Amino acid sequence: MNGITGLGERKVIKIIMEHLEKMPDIPFPYGDDVSAVQIDDGTLAVLKTDMLVGKTDIPSGMSLKQAARKAVVMNVSDFAAKGVRPLIALASLGLPKDLNEKDVEEIGLGLNWGAREYGAYIVGGDTNESSDLIINCSLLGFCKKSTLVKRGGARPGDIVAVTGLFGKTPAGLKILQECLSVHRRIEKALLDAVLMPKARLWEGLALAESKVLTASIDSSDGLAWSLSELSDASGVGFIIDDVPLAHEAKEFAEAYGLNPLDLALYGGEEYELVVTVKPQDWKKAKEVAEGVGAKLTKIGRATEGREILLKHDEEIKTVERKGWEHFKTL
Amino acid sequence: MNGITGLGERKVIKIIMEHLEKMPDIPFPYGDDVSAVQIDDGTLAVLKTDMLVGKTDIPSGMSLKQAARKAVVMNVSDFAAKGVRPLIALASLGLPKDLNEKDVEEIGLGLNWGAREYGAYIVGGDTNESSDLIINCSLLGFCKKSTLVKRGGARPGDIVAVTGLFGKTPAGLKILQECLSVHRRIEKALLDAVLMPKARLWEGLALAESKVLTASIDSSDGLAWSLSELSDASGVGFIIDDVPLAHEAKEFAEAYGLNPLDLALYGGEEYELVVTVKPQDWKKAKEVAEGVGAKLTKIGRATEGREILLKHDEEIKTVERKGWEHFKTL
Repeated sequence: MNGITGLGERKVIKIIMEHLEKMPDIPFPYGDDVSAVQIDDGTLAVLKTDMLVGKTDIPSGMSLKQAARKAVVMNVSDFAAKGVRPLIALASLGLPKDLNEKDVEEIGLGLNWGAREYGAYIVGGDTNESSDLIINCSLLGFCKKSTLVKRGGARPGDIVAVTGLFGKTPAGLKILQECLSVHRRIEKALLDAVLMPKARLWEGLALAESKVLTASIDSSDGLAWSLSELSDASGVGFIIDDVPLAHEAKEFAEAYGLNPLDLALYGGEEYELVVTVKPQDWKKAKEVAEGVGAKLTKIGRATEGREILLKHDEEIKTVERKGWEHFKTL
Repeated sequence: MNGITGLGERKVIKIIMEHLEKMPDIPFPYGDDVSAVQIDDGTLAVLKTDMLVGKTDIPSGMSLKQAARKAVVMNVSDFAAKGVRPLIALASLGLPKDLNEKDVEEIGLGLNWGAREYGAYIVGGDTNESSDLIINCSLLGFCKKSTLVKRGGARPGDIVAVTGLFGKTPAGLKILQECLSVHRRIEKALLDAVLMPKARLWEGLALAESKVLTASIDSSDGLAWSLSELSDASGVGFIIDDVPLAHEAKEFAEAYGLNPLDLALYGGEEYELVVTVKPQDWKKAKEVAEGVGAKLTKIGRATEGREILLKHDEEIKTVERKGWEHFKTL
């Protein structure tokens, strides 16, 4: 295969990282979900940037308003995983010249919607002409150094848990991409998961604030990939005995002869939090989540061995370390 | 004309701004060169994002390393104009899939180069697939609220000054775009201006720190446009009696029958600072610039009337309020 299509996104990132001089005394590891710089002894400024590209990230059926909202939400989701409240956002736009005035309005409305939904404001940005629609969002927030949750803090024996049910987004994406028809009973839930993703900000803030998390990541590249990243950063493995599946995803998988577990593990574009908690803090963690109207579901345990295993129907299978990746899936 | 090509970039920005809920108590005006949020009574966190798009911003003859460097430098230039030192930078990349591993290395090297040249570090980012090459850089820095220089502080009678000579970049761009040949004596200076733009960071920091500036902007969209923006934000006009022209730009203009003043006023992609200074602070301002090895050149005065006038060869002409603008010039 020619060009970077053969390399894959993670290898591309690795090559770039190798050519960057590392900042001394950085308060947060390179390669985690956000970047941070120390303001004073106890406080960090936290920065995140993430780009939405029309061709790969905006499925047919998603309006420009929804796409612009999503460009903000996917950044907020990383802040949620780290326990950081977003304060201000900048939007850099690459706009194809065939967009019209109404389209530009929709983008403005969507950006504002995504930011205000999570208490942030869009305060600036940049506009350019490009072939693809590009919406790049950058977020800034502040947090106590003591509450920022890394990927690398999970230890063997920790409980691994998630904030919601999996499988709806990949099912919804399949419906949009392959023009599938499903029963109206489940269609709305599956499409809403794609078109109106929600970041688990309030859950992430409450859990981080209560200091019950040892590690955290969002599931935007798929549950399997999130576990793989936590595994690499923390030096642990996982034994998973429950993958919480949305009933709509199960019904969809049955109708189309798909394995619902594959949808849930390898789908991506779902913005749940995947967290680890010390067993003695589990009760408190569940209560904290309930306190903000959410539910933390235990899906397994961190292990000494580095493998990620799934116990299902009395069988133990290896969870593949794969997920959504640019330059590979296209 | 269909689509946003007929609207122009500034109208596109206006439409988007109209749909953004404004943040209360924002410490720095919307529409200025950077965005800021208050950390404590005296300190601001300052944020900037700017996107470089291959098709419009990377002329033929510019290497990927130079392009990635430029993507950082054009952001640093805005920090320079406001008197803010950049601390960390994030890079969001949209990469065409026909790039190869060596190309990706060049981009990594260029990003690092642009950041380290000005004391900053690239600490994170995002990688995507796109049709155009997209390099979006976001910068974060901190500054004292009392030293941040706005666009809107110029008053009638203030001296307007610049940090360098104009015309080389637009001449160099013409050489690259139209494959012109010029004498080797001037070729390098003209091409270097395009390929290796420099931000006036040390000048901007020293001038801001010494509190001699009433307003400031960089000249990235052209000197005429910078004056127009200062005029709008400050509610003043300008009478310009000197446009400092690079001798290479004069020689180029003569060889190709162009008006060198047009190159200097309407060219763009030059990263000088355009600042205003109270007459009583002028001597100090010049000394401060000299202290960092630079030269501040007086080009005119701010006026009560809102026009921007140019006194040249005993004639007075109106400087057009035009400059580089996406969706209009293509």
